[in-house]
Amino acid sequence: MLVTYADEVALIGEILRTHGASAMPAGVQARWLTEADLRGHPSHGLQRVRTIVGRMRGGLIEADSRPELQWRSPSALVVDGRRGFGPVVGLATIRELVRRVGATGVAIGAVHGANHLGLLGPYVEEIAEDGLIGAAMTTSEALVHAWGGHTRMLGTNPIAIGIPAEQGPFVLDMATGAVSMGRVLAHARTRIPLEEGWAVDDTGAPTLDPDLAVAGAISPFGGPKGYGLGLAVELLVAALTGTALGTAVHGTLDAECESTKGDLFMVIDPGDFGVDEIPGRLSRYLQEVRRSGSSEPGKEVAVPGDRSRSARARGLSEGFTVDDGVWREAEELLQVAESDLQLERTKR
Amino acid sequence: MLVTYADEVALIGEILRTHGASAMPAGVQARWLTEADLRGHPSHGLQRVRTIVGRMRGGLIEADSRPELQWRSPSALVVDGRRGFGPVVGLATIRELVRRVGATGVAIGAVHGANHLGLLGPYVEEIAEDGLIGAAMTTSEALVHAWGGHTRMLGTNPIAIGIPAEQGPFVLDMATGAVSMGRVLAHARTRIPLEEGWAVDDTGAPTLDPDLAVAGAISPFGGPKGYGLGLAVELLVAALTGTALGTAVHGTLDAECESTKGDLFMVIDPGDFGVDEIPGRLSRYLQEVRRSGSSEPGKEVAVPGDRSRSARARGLSEGFTVDDGVWREAEELLQVAESDLQLERTKR
Repeated sequence: MLVTYADEVALIGEILRTHGASAMPAGVQARWLTEADLRGHPSHGLQRVRTIVGRMRGGLIEADSRPELQWRSPSALVVDGRRGFGPVVGLATIRELVRRVGATGVAIGAVHGANHLGLLGPYVEEIAEDGLIGAAMTTSEALVHAWGGHTRMLGTNPIAIGIPAEQGPFVLDMATGAVSMGRVLAHARTRIPLEEGWAVDDTGAPTLDPDLAVAGAISPFGGPKGYGLGLAVELLVAALTGTALGTAVHGTLDAECESTKGDLFMVIDPGDFGVDEIPGRLSRYLQEVRRSGSSEPGKEVAVPGDRSRSARARGLSEGFTVDDGVWREAEELLQVAESDLQLERTKR
Repeated sequence: MLVTYADEVALIGEILRTHGASAMPAGVQARWLTEADLRGHPSHGLQRVRTIVGRMRGGLIEADSRPELQWRSPSALVVDGRRGFGPVVGLATIRELVRRVGATGVAIGAVHGANHLGLLGPYVEEIAEDGLIGAAMTTSEALVHAWGGHTRMLGTNPIAIGIPAEQGPFVLDMATGAVSMGRVLAHARTRIPLEEGWAVDDTGAPTLDPDLAVAGAISPFGGPKGYGLGLAVELLVAALTGTALGTAVHGTLDAECESTKGDLFMVIDPGDFGVDEIPGRLSRYLQEVRRSGSSEPGKEVAVPGDRSRSARARGLSEGFTVDDGVWREAEELLQVAESDLQLERTKR
């Protein structure tokens, strides 16, 4: 079905408020999920609201708690998310980093105790739109095998990098797994074989069979280099946030477990390095990159951030599609009566 | 031929001193090239000394200049390499960052005007051996095409990350190109076809023919994600150092052009984020990763840094091989008389 940005934000906001969130956190979380659908990433959109509500009902998300932010060094911020919504904690963190970076040039925020951040791109995009450089990374449940290994040892550990440029920021937002488990599960439902290099079965042998992959593990993207990069994210996040590693990471995909993953954000002020005319120089180079492919008109090489930006603009003006079943399931969450919620709380 | 670490350091040191370097910079550069051969990366070893000498003779390297380091913000260091040897400038930069990071938690050094850094791994390894987290990245001549493009737009832009751990640090050191141009050229000499995914010809079509690849471009590793990452390095380095982008990057492979590339180093003090027992926790996890593969004894999964560390230890105790021709060519550089050098200098 075709929906508007305002429709989806309103629906999710209402669901979250019905389940006890107050207006501000409900609005932030609603906008973050809607951004994902708007940009063509439904795996991080409305379909996540059921798990979020389950986590709220189980006390794993405390929608109205406020994160605790503490500067432990001029450039080192430690954040306790206190079970808040991921986007509420993430935005509070980057805004504090942006505030500080004018004085120090560089600032890192290390977050524990927050729930799922959702799409990473919009955080670093917001930073880059302020003329700053932003980076974000986060750990997640172990689904990816090591290169040469065959059991699940790493999260899909995404990395996002935002850099200011004149035609709109460069925004890289990539998981270090070859594919998401959501996509493998979609193939399992539709019986379409996987692509080569996506996954292994439970003996470590490469497989195109989605069911064998579900019992096995996702492969890192790009062979040993992608594995090395995913492992670097796993270690960096754990080292600076004190959160869990490998198979001890829980709570981003389920409604049962405490969130034990961590998140890192970095902001750099390029003005503090004394280089002039950066956005203009980068933009001229990016234009060359866009023209470095096919000579067919309209067939430009994509620069990270371009596709998401144009999908967003199109979705805002023309609306965007959301799966009918996902929308209906979300609406059903409105039917859960306040009395049920009270009962659940009493039982805990 | 089999050589020792001391042999190679002595040979390179003598060559560089003969061509006008004083003892300290000659020694640092000699150790850096020797480390590469010792660790099994001859492309960054002795075979580079001819180009280095050519650059010294052409005035593109000023071996005895000292880098100029300036803190422009508490965490932002700007370094003018003043045409010095890459490793001399690189080491001065990381030592200044390590000195500062105790006070700030995070520090970034942005370097312009330095010559080729050589192997990146040892810089971040040195940082990690101090119990700190280190990262390095650098730009290089455009050899890699954009994903969807077919002309050379990006350097092979390597990234290195070092993280402390008990069995020796995690050290990732990877280029964002699928393969080095040195390896493509080696295939061209031996007429062995390339592997799939390494390169395209000058029309942008994938090719296994090394000659067509030399006229074409190297592919990014890992498809669109590796491309995005390489492009992020290109932009980050240029944004913070003010150095060149894309096809305007010169001076790491030739003896004719001013070095227009840039280098970034970052140091993070995990102690400033208040997390306890990090090296122990990371090490226990890395042990699990090493055991997550084959159950065959001795067939451990490699963690980045392991292979390099064992190659180094073996090379230090048993010696390591260097190509006979490369060693002979290097020795010939000793024959260039001091009078020639004087003549060259007078002509400039």
